[in-house]
Amino acid sequence: MEKLTVVKVGGKVVEEPQSLSTLIRLFTAIQGNKILVHGGGRSATDIAAKMGIESQYVDGRRITDAATLEVVTMVYGGLVNKNIVAQLQALGQNALGLSGADLNVIQAVKRPVKSIDYGFVGDVTKVNGEVLHQLLQLGTIPVMAPLTHNGEGLMLNTNADTIAAETAKAMSKYCKVQLVYCFEKPGVLENEQDDESVIAHLNQQNYREYVQKGVISGGMIPKLDNAFDAIAAGVNEVVITKFENLSTNSGTSIR
Amino acid sequence: MEKLTVVKVGGKVVEEPQSLSTLIRLFTAIQGNKILVHGGGRSATDIAAKMGIESQYVDGRRITDAATLEVVTMVYGGLVNKNIVAQLQALGQNALGLSGADLNVIQAVKRPVKSIDYGFVGDVTKVNGEVLHQLLQLGTIPVMAPLTHNGEGLMLNTNADTIAAETAKAMSKYCKVQLVYCFEKPGVLENEQDDESVIAHLNQQNYREYVQKGVISGGMIPKLDNAFDAIAAGVNEVVITKFENLSTNSGTSIR
Repeated sequence: MEKLTVVKVGGKVVEEPQSLSTLIRLFTAIQGNKILVHGGGRSATDIAAKMGIESQYVDGRRITDAATLEVVTMVYGGLVNKNIVAQLQALGQNALGLSGADLNVIQAVKRPVKSIDYGFVGDVTKVNGEVLHQLLQLGTIPVMAPLTHNGEGLMLNTNADTIAAETAKAMSKYCKVQLVYCFEKPGVLENEQDDESVIAHLNQQNYREYVQKGVISGGMIPKLDNAFDAIAAGVNEVVITKFENLSTNSGTSIR
Repeated sequence: MEKLTVVKVGGKVVEEPQSLSTLIRLFTAIQGNKILVHGGGRSATDIAAKMGIESQYVDGRRITDAATLEVVTMVYGGLVNKNIVAQLQALGQNALGLSGADLNVIQAVKRPVKSIDYGFVGDVTKVNGEVLHQLLQLGTIPVMAPLTHNGEGLMLNTNADTIAAETAKAMSKYCKVQLVYCFEKPGVLENEQDDESVIAHLNQQNYREYVQKGVISGGMIPKLDNAFDAIAAGVNEVVITKFENLSTNSGTSIR
């Protein structure tokens, strides 16, 4: 089975010219099939503020009202996405920017309102792995913005981590998938104060032990639960690392 | 040779929900290979104004400074493009939004500064007809934003009429191309006050006669010169019509 690397980078990396250019160089060096999934929340917040639209959050999640949906559609799908694509093309990488609507790559449903109304936020229902595989076979490098559509003409805002995980899962039918999450830290740490204390390998068993001992806790638990979900759904390996280490094979490997 | 219809619509049509939805319906009804090229200048001006960026024009052409380049990249490539793509997908049309950077579809050079510095405006140097043809063969419907790139990582603002003409020319190597310009008027008129006075057919000979008699004058002349350039470059037919008449084969046919 052919290899595929799915790299997810957050907004901070792609929004600063210097880190973006480092990322582009390191991503270019990755051999074989690859997909880049990007965020862009800081730019969206900036542009919204300049337009007099206040960004609202509940538990760290953006509430996407109609005005904010316009902002994220243009910032993620236009500004951030096209800058990445143009810079990859400058290095001879045949990048293609995609929102979920393009080629119907990712469909979603507007999140049902329970205790919180998140607004125009999409919960992924289907990733079109077949069309992504076709694009890869043509030598294309998909660059995916965190936007989906509902199949009825409406764009929806969707978390980039989720886009990356669902894409990796769908592609595991066609490829041996490595899903790489770029974080601020060089991996999952034994000691949060010590960047040298990266846990090199995690599996279900030692993960449970780390959690029981309290070594892994807090916000890292849902992230790792999602990583193990991806493994259970057929993804070959999930890696948590710093984007600066993309070429070094360091970080935490989860299988 | 297979047929291809390239439709160019201005900002006004795609920026108002009602005319956009009519356009989507009429464009969907076009059989065979097709490409949609859109503008979006009004939205760009609106968003720029909300962000406190003043839009500047010389002879009706936008001056694209760095801040304006960000605005047009996000508005054309994100907001306007993705809304069109999502609505086409809702009617089962397999649309794919493209800027010139995506798949390196359209390269340009930053316009040299002569008497006027237009800023980050791109003059088209190459349309990648081969990749567009490949996309058409996959059943894809390219939706092209008026944005190009310089091959060195920089996005550039490019007139949508030019994108449409250059695309039509490049595709005439692969297809029998009909290039349709949607205007406010139902075609080229003998009498500007009378929408019924559409000139049904124009060729080099009667065009010269109309110009000599003063029937055709002013801003219509450069537009028609461009149309005849496209014909000379291999485009089979240029049509000037109202978007509401897209399905009726009315308007001015130029060969």
